[in-house]
Amino acid sequence: MKFKTHYLVFNTKKRIDFINITREVRTVIQESQVREGLCLVNAMHISASVFINDNETGLHYDFQKWLEKLAPHNPIEQYRHNDTGEDNADAHLKRQIMGREVIIAITNGNLDFGPWEQVFYGEFDGQRSKKVLIKVIGD
Amino acid sequence: MKFKTHYLVFNTKKRIDFINITREVRTVIQESQVREGLCLVNAMHISASVFINDNETGLHYDFQKWLEKLAPHNPIEQYRHNDTGEDNADAHLKRQIMGREVIIAITNGNLDFGPWEQVFYGEFDGQRSKKVLIKVIGD
Amino acid sequence: MKFKTHYLVFNTKKRIDFINITREVRTVIQESQVREGLCLVNAMHISASVFINDNETGLHYDFQKWLEKLAPHNPIEQYRHNDTGEDNADAHLKRQIMGREVIIAITNGNLDFGPWEQVFYGEFDGQRSKKVLIKVIGD
Repeated sequence: MKFKTHYLVFNTKKRIDFINITREVRTVIQESQVREGLCLVNAMHISASVFINDNETGLHYDFQKWLEKLAPHNPIEQYRHNDTGEDNADAHLKRQIMGREVIIAITNGNLDFGPWEQVFYGEFDGQRSKKVLIKVIGD
Repeated sequence: MKFKTHYLVFNTKKRIDFINITREVRTVIQESQVREGLCLVNAMHISASVFINDNETGLHYDFQKWLEKLAPHNPIEQYRHNDTGEDNADAHLKRQIMGREVIIAITNGNLDFGPWEQVFYGEFDGQRSKKVLIKVIGD
Repeated sequence: MKFKTHYLVFNTKKRIDFINITREVRTVIQESQVREGLCLVNAMHISASVFINDNETGLHYDFQKWLEKLAPHNPIEQYRHNDTGEDNADAHLKRQIMGREVIIAITNGNLDFGPWEQVFYGEFDGQRSKKVLIKVIGD
């Protein structure tokens, strides 16, 4: 059984941002030499997501507008979490809708992906250093 | 270590539909001869979901009505993704709420399920050919 | 390849409740003697969640208020699922937002967690006996 663990670090310029990490995931899988197995990719911070969807700018705009409607940042006083001195309660909520992690099948040494699947890091409280974990297991 | 990879294909008559795939997942697990392991089931298209919930018609109606309220299809002009010529931006949003994938424990050669757990394919932009991946790993 | 399967049972006093199960997950991982692998933690009931987020009381209050806004319990007549005699349709919806399961990487024999990650059982239709599954696989 083979394993590989790798960490990515992000420090986004914007508070909310989506970053395509498909190439990084593919590289870690190739380096693992796993031919058949599973690859976990998860945000290590609780105000961020890893998700799989379309690499299309208009859709990413739609995601941001939609998440802001479902879990608005302002007014920050509406959230009891923000009584602790934080202003990121909405980021914890947004992350639940977009998800913490994805599991990707590895078949014949590559991501077993549909035609449009791409992996994204979803940042909801950025402008500071945050990590993503990639873990490969298999044979 | 044993592996098995299997693909299901769906072409739903309706734009939105939920299809119980528990039997298909159980068959793949039995064919894999894995006694202890994990089974990944994921939509390979980004406007569809795989999720676990109740096999109850009323609830499926409630899911559809609720998703339409949270991420309405119309007016399609409200989404920038639809400027590309698509009309399925809402399907990408609905899929985030219902999820891309499930991971199921395999214990003693069978799905380790609670009393009401059933696996569903959730289609949000159907009427064309789309795939689901089932990947079993274990011993 | 090593495996371990463990079940937790909950019977919450309140209909909706969040319970920190990080210690229980850590114990099962240590008992499995897996050094490198994956740990699945999932609700076995379809009106409950397992999720990873912050161990902060104010945030848990925010989650409950937010979920009640997105998928209100009352009036129970708004849901066709409740025509079956149930009153928990909203619990099935809330569980989709918070998720059924998490997958946790195991590195060097321990949970490979970020600084604030904690595992929670999320109950949305409690006051009766319900189970969580913990499954560890690896080497």
